[in-house]
Amino acid sequence: MRIAIDAMGGDHAPHAQVESALAAAAEWPDTQLILVGKPEILTPLLGSKVPSNVTIEPAEEVIENDDEPVRAVRRKSNSSMVVAGRMVKEGRADAMISAGNTGALMAVGLLLLGRLNGIDRPGLAPMFPSLDNVGVLALDMGANMDAKPEHLLQYALMGTIYREKVHGIRKPSVGLLNVGTEQAKGNELTKAAYDLLEQAPIHFVGNIEARDVLRHKCDVIVCDGFSGNIMLKAFEGAASSIFSLLREELMSSFKSKIAAAILKPSFRRVRDRMDYNEYNGAPLLGVNGLVVKGHGSSDAKAMKTAIRHTRTAIGNGLIAALTEEFSGK
Amino acid sequence: MRIAIDAMGGDHAPHAQVESALAAAAEWPDTQLILVGKPEILTPLLGSKVPSNVTIEPAEEVIENDDEPVRAVRRKSNSSMVVAGRMVKEGRADAMISAGNTGALMAVGLLLLGRLNGIDRPGLAPMFPSLDNVGVLALDMGANMDAKPEHLLQYALMGTIYREKVHGIRKPSVGLLNVGTEQAKGNELTKAAYDLLEQAPIHFVGNIEARDVLRHKCDVIVCDGFSGNIMLKAFEGAASSIFSLLREELMSSFKSKIAAAILKPSFRRVRDRMDYNEYNGAPLLGVNGLVVKGHGSSDAKAMKTAIRHTRTAIGNGLIAALTEEFSGK
Repeated sequence: MRIAIDAMGGDHAPHAQVESALAAAAEWPDTQLILVGKPEILTPLLGSKVPSNVTIEPAEEVIENDDEPVRAVRRKSNSSMVVAGRMVKEGRADAMISAGNTGALMAVGLLLLGRLNGIDRPGLAPMFPSLDNVGVLALDMGANMDAKPEHLLQYALMGTIYREKVHGIRKPSVGLLNVGTEQAKGNELTKAAYDLLEQAPIHFVGNIEARDVLRHKCDVIVCDGFSGNIMLKAFEGAASSIFSLLREELMSSFKSKIAAAILKPSFRRVRDRMDYNEYNGAPLLGVNGLVVKGHGSSDAKAMKTAIRHTRTAIGNGLIAALTEEFSGK
Repeated sequence: MRIAIDAMGGDHAPHAQVESALAAAAEWPDTQLILVGKPEILTPLLGSKVPSNVTIEPAEEVIENDDEPVRAVRRKSNSSMVVAGRMVKEGRADAMISAGNTGALMAVGLLLLGRLNGIDRPGLAPMFPSLDNVGVLALDMGANMDAKPEHLLQYALMGTIYREKVHGIRKPSVGLLNVGTEQAKGNELTKAAYDLLEQAPIHFVGNIEARDVLRHKCDVIVCDGFSGNIMLKAFEGAASSIFSLLREELMSSFKSKIAAAILKPSFRRVRDRMDYNEYNGAPLLGVNGLVVKGHGSSDAKAMKTAIRHTRTAIGNGLIAALTEEFSGK
C-alpha cells in the first residue's frame, strides 16, 4: 500500500514527518511512504541510506496555518497538501495524511476528491481516549458547523462502518451527544436526529452526555461539528489545566518534589492515557478517498500512530465499504 | 436581607441545606435564612437552639429530579421550590436558592417570576474555575437550547453587569465561545452574534476557544445553552477521568502509595481549584427576581458558598441594575 504524507504541514514538520516515515518504512516493508514536499529540504533530512520504500514527491508550495482554506487549496495547486490529495485522486496513493491546516485539508477532500455518493457533508472523526483504553470515535469534530439531522445519521452510519472495518468491533454502539440522557433533551437538531437514529440500521444507545464520553458509554458518538469541536477543546483544556496545576503544586516544596519524582512514571502513564496523540489520525469520513488528519502538534511518534491507523483502514477496505454502503442512497 | 432556600431539592437535601443555613446565620447576622420545606422533617434537623434569623416556611410537596419541569411547577404549587419562588415574587424574600431539578427551577423563573423587560430568554450563569483563581462567568449553560444571536447579546450585557456588580470588576471582558479565534470561524449563530457583540457597549475580546476558558482569557463567556452545557460537562468529565486514573495509578504499588500519601494535600488543592462547588451558585439571569441554582451535588459547604454569592448579589442591587439596563429596550 502507498501512503502520501504531507511533509510540510504541522508544527513539527518536516522533521516529525520524515522521522515517522523512516520508522514506518522499517516496521512495515509492504508500505510505500511518499513524502510530499520540497526536495531540497527533505533530501538532507532523509540522510544517505534511504530505504527503498520511502520516496519524495516534489511540491514547491506550502499551505500555512493562517491561509484561508478554500482560497489556499485553489491557488496553491502545487502545495504539498494539494499534491498529496491529487495523488489519492489519481490513484497514485491509497491514502494521504496531513498534520497541516485542518480547513484546507477538508477543502482538499471536498474540492479535489469530492463527496461519496449519498453523503451530504463529510465529518472529521478523531478517536477520543477512554478510561478503559478502547477509545471512542467522535464525529463530526469541526468539518460541518451547521449540521442537519440527516448529516448526523450519515455520521452514525459511517462511524459504524469505520469501527467495524478498522477496529474489528461487531455491532458498535452509537450515541448522540446531548445535554441529558432523556429522549426529550436537547436542541431542535438533536431531537430530530434522535428519531432518525432510532430507526436506522445501527446499534443506537440513545443520548450520551459529554462527561460520559471518556467513560466509553458508546463506540461512536455523533454530533454537529460546532459542539463536537467545543467538547474536544474542553477535554484538552481541562487536561492541560489539571496537569499545569499539578506541576505547580508538586514543585512547591522539597518534600513534594521528592515524592513527585517517585511518581513520575505514574503521572506519565496517566498523561499518555489522556493523550490524543496516542490515537492520532482522524479520517475525514465521507470523501472519495482516504484523507487522514494528524493533530497539528504531532511529533514523530504521533505521526507514526496516524500511519498505523491509515494502514489498517487501507488494509480493511474502508473506502470500498463506505462506497458500497452509500451507493444508491 | 432575606434568602429563601429550597430545603428539599438536591442530592444532599435537606441535611446540607439546613446545615448551611445554620452556618450562614451565624456568619451573617443581618441575613434571614428561610428554609422552605416540610416542617416535620426540618424542625428536628434544626435542633433545639434555632437562631432567630433561621425560619421555616412550610411546603408539603417536593419536585423530584425526574419530574417533567413545566408540569411539575404547574401541578406541585405547594412544593418547596415553587413556594420559595412565590416568596421572591411576593417580595417576602430577596432571592431564592435551589439545588433541585434545574429545568423546574428555570420554569419557576419563567412562569412565576417572568422575564425582565427587554430579555427574550434567561440564561443560566455558573462560574467556571480558572487557573488564576479569578473564575469566568459562563452563560448560557442550558436554559435556552436554541439561542438566537440577540440572545447571546443579552447574555453579554447581563454577564457584564453581574461581574461589575457582584465581583466588582470594572469593564469585564466578554468572549464568544467558538471553535477558533478568527472572526470568520464558527456556525451561523456565532458569526451573526460576533457582529452584534462587536457593536455592543461592552468590552468584547472576540472568539474564545473552550480550551482557553479555564485560562481566564475573558471574564464572561457567552454561548448557546446546548454547546455551553456540552463544554461544562466535558470539563467535569475530563477532570473526573483524570482523577480516577491518578487514583488507580497511585494505588498500584507500595512505593507509589507512600509517595501519594505525602502528596495528598497537593492533590486535594488541585482538586479544589478545579471544583465547581467552590464557585457554587449560578444565577438564572434575565428573570424578574434573583433565582440561584446550586449544583445538584452541593454539600453544606457548597450551599454556603451559594448563599455567600447570593448575599453579594442582593447587597449590590443586581436585579435593580439589570432592570435599569434593559428597561425601555
